[in-house]
Amino acid sequence: MADPIPFTRGVPSADMLPVDDMRSALATAMEREPVVALSYSPGGHKGLRAWIGARHGAPAERVICANGSLEAFAFVTGVLLGRAPTARVLVEAPTYDRSILILRRAGADVVGVPVDGDGIDTDALAAELERGPAAFIYVIPNFQNPSGATMSLERRRRLLELARKHGTVVVEDDPYGLLRWAGESLPTLIELDGDNVVTLSSFTKTVAPGLRIGYAVAPQELATAIGGYAENTYISPCMISQAGLAAYCDAGFFEPGVERAKQELKRRCDAMVEAVRVHFPAEVQMVVPQGGYFLWLDLGPGADTTALAARAAEAGVPFVKGADFYADGGGTTSLRLAFSAVPADRIREGIERLGAVIASS
Amino acid sequence: MADPIPFTRGVPSADMLPVDDMRSALATAMEREPVVALSYSPGGHKGLRAWIGARHGAPAERVICANGSLEAFAFVTGVLLGRAPTARVLVEAPTYDRSILILRRAGADVVGVPVDGDGIDTDALAAELERGPAAFIYVIPNFQNPSGATMSLERRRRLLELARKHGTVVVEDDPYGLLRWAGESLPTLIELDGDNVVTLSSFTKTVAPGLRIGYAVAPQELATAIGGYAENTYISPCMISQAGLAAYCDAGFFEPGVERAKQELKRRCDAMVEAVRVHFPAEVQMVVPQGGYFLWLDLGPGADTTALAARAAEAGVPFVKGADFYADGGGTTSLRLAFSAVPADRIREGIERLGAVIASS
Repeated sequence: MADPIPFTRGVPSADMLPVDDMRSALATAMEREPVVALSYSPGGHKGLRAWIGARHGAPAERVICANGSLEAFAFVTGVLLGRAPTARVLVEAPTYDRSILILRRAGADVVGVPVDGDGIDTDALAAELERGPAAFIYVIPNFQNPSGATMSLERRRRLLELARKHGTVVVEDDPYGLLRWAGESLPTLIELDGDNVVTLSSFTKTVAPGLRIGYAVAPQELATAIGGYAENTYISPCMISQAGLAAYCDAGFFEPGVERAKQELKRRCDAMVEAVRVHFPAEVQMVVPQGGYFLWLDLGPGADTTALAARAAEAGVPFVKGADFYADGGGTTSLRLAFSAVPADRIREGIERLGAVIASS
Repeated sequence: MADPIPFTRGVPSADMLPVDDMRSALATAMEREPVVALSYSPGGHKGLRAWIGARHGAPAERVICANGSLEAFAFVTGVLLGRAPTARVLVEAPTYDRSILILRRAGADVVGVPVDGDGIDTDALAAELERGPAAFIYVIPNFQNPSGATMSLERRRRLLELARKHGTVVVEDDPYGLLRWAGESLPTLIELDGDNVVTLSSFTKTVAPGLRIGYAVAPQELATAIGGYAENTYISPCMISQAGLAAYCDAGFFEPGVERAKQELKRRCDAMVEAVRVHFPAEVQMVVPQGGYFLWLDLGPGADTTALAARAAEAGVPFVKGADFYADGGGTTSLRLAFSAVPADRIREGIERLGAVIASS
């Protein structure tokens, strides 16, 4: 088999990691506050919570840190399902596969609402909300995983209105929002309605996955409940990592790091889009992403990306099949390609190889 | 109010943290393997898993690391409840309060089996197993939290026999086992029956809480299932912390650190036991622990430690009331005192103050 070129994992490649800056930040943390770094701190590092809060216009007390945003999502899910009279949760179709799993484990009844190039279909959402109440609505507004789509401002406003009207909370998952290289930056949902939105985000895509630092920003009463639930689950997030990231942010490493990541991701995304246009069948459909990590393709009627995934993996160009991202069926003609983990020249090579697999099937 | 002397939290005090050794180990980790420290690694750091496995006579593949042993317990619970035909879980009464919570969240029917100075009452356990099947049996054999009791070798063998006879797994939680300063070290349950025991432990008590590193060692088939469940929950444990601890262990810092901790904990335990004998009512009952973090007291018939807890907190000498450690009622005359977080001279002062609160109630 040819040297594998993995399009599966939404992670940065090793060359994108801020090794020198993080090494320096960890040394600073272990000099300035070793006891903090080696002790428990439920909810996370105080300085880091304040730094995150300031970026979202919230005090530190409204920020709960976790070991990754998936853990933060599990905490938010536990609290919201615990207080809602229904287990019904509305999600985008497609949506992040691991979020579906966390919801199902927590006993949620997961209902998918279609997504197009402008994000969640708010007419379909309105119809679902008329059909019955929801414990919450879970959306990924920017460079959605897996579809790459960004929710328009009009849809953001309509989504928030619908949530208000039906007395349900919106959970906004935004790990990619800062990684925009095209189009106009849109306000986050928490910026538009801070009293009815929980925002989740992470430093996995903006700094490094190995940190395992994600967070939730919530209205105060909900943040207190999430913090209590979190403490009973993790006691404290990993404080060596939290103290290191706090020093990294204080040293001013964050913004330049995001800038570097964006430039590299744009290069990879451009290479992938161009190669798909050259090497894939003409009928392939895609939303060219304005940022993020993923390109989502639809191969058109008759395609079977589940069968294709097995052949692509054999050819050393694995991807994630579309069906994995649907809570209740669908996605059988779609696939997700991550462009984050592979340098641009290897992306071209891999897409050419994948194009050949498609052509021969 | 007088300066608070907290007997609540089972954490080491700041002066017990291995600040210099961990600072050096983190620097080593960021020099020798920064990409590993900043990337995902499901199941944990390979070298650390091998190091842990070697201590338990198991290959690295049977070790699954988590962000603390409570998270490892949640993973093990998820897997074992998922495959058992019953939600019934047998635990010691009393047992660790957060474990009860994790079990209940996972939908377990938690049944307490009495503990005395020799650990779980195996006759009572046999009777419970006759009453109906159990998904698993959860025990803390060494310096039990909260009772401080250590399970005798005879009871260990009997427990394992009973588990085998009834086709159920034993989950052994052993965060304190290495912190023994008196009596004879006993074989762990996994040493006695590696094919039917999952061992949980942690570096919180032997190195530092802020690491948030715990682990499960399980029979291979179960370890694979736990690893899969873990990856779907945490994606990866915090790798900065894992890489730092791997370097700490490789540098030979672990054993001397445990030795230092043991000496200091013995000093604190001795001070507490002595002060209790002087300042508490003569009828108080205690099992003098041979290691660990906690002293468990029974104030005798008629005592109400729930009411006492509120007055003690007001007097600045908070403790955890006994009732918190019982899944199904009990503990109303008992209390748990942690001696780990307070230096010996402050322990004497605090116990004298607490004795006065008891005398006046």
